[in-house]
Amino acid sequence: MSKSELVVTPVQECAGSPVVRPPISAETAGSLAGMFKALSDPVRLRVLSAVAARADHEACVCDLSEGIDVTQPTISHHLKVLREAGVLSSERRASWVYYRVEPAVLRQISAFLDVVTPQEGR
Amino acid sequence: MSKSELVVTPVQECAGSPVVRPPISAETAGSLAGMFKALSDPVRLRVLSAVAARADHEACVCDLSEGIDVTQPTISHHLKVLREAGVLSSERRASWVYYRVEPAVLRQISAFLDVVTPQEGR
Repeated sequence: MSKSELVVTPVQECAGSPVVRPPISAETAGSLAGMFKALSDPVRLRVLSAVAARADHEACVCDLSEGIDVTQPTISHHLKVLREAGVLSSERRASWVYYRVEPAVLRQISAFLDVVTPQEGR
Repeated sequence: MSKSELVVTPVQECAGSPVVRPPISAETAGSLAGMFKALSDPVRLRVLSAVAARADHEACVCDLSEGIDVTQPTISHHLKVLREAGVLSSERRASWVYYRVEPAVLRQISAFLDVVTPQEGR
């Protein structure tokens, strides 16, 4: 076949949609990924939910393993991860340590989800 | 020291708050943890954000690596994880595959976050 017989099929242009809002930066993505990772374990979510289930989103550590069938050191490990991620804060009062849900990090995740989730009636 | 001299210090009762809303079940926690895990990678979040940045929350695969400095197979891997988690759906039209953000899973995460996040003015 000579060159003149070559049939070139042009690649069809895609019908992609235009960019209508800015995507997140690499830096924001890294920060958000760490927050999502802190919440990517079932026991961690149950511990967080157990704190949030109580009045003022605060629980005594002595109440936290209630109904969660894991050892106390496992609960302690997950509390530490949640505290380091900024999802929980802790305070010692008299003989006990109390954990409280901190809203800032959770609100950052919610704000990201709001932007990427298509709204009803799209 | 005789037994009669033993001073027993009683453990102080904690001042824990009462349960005011039900915590999540083990089953729900497992399901939510999988969703959080799908979003716990920075490149995956950028890919999701790149789809969501376009009109109708839909993007052609050819546009997705724009500005994200990873190889095409890496993008493909992350698209697969997001699709398997139900966060994205895909459709082939003519020569191209288009990805779209699916709201259901993202709304489940948002609903969980709404419940565990303390509201303003607590």
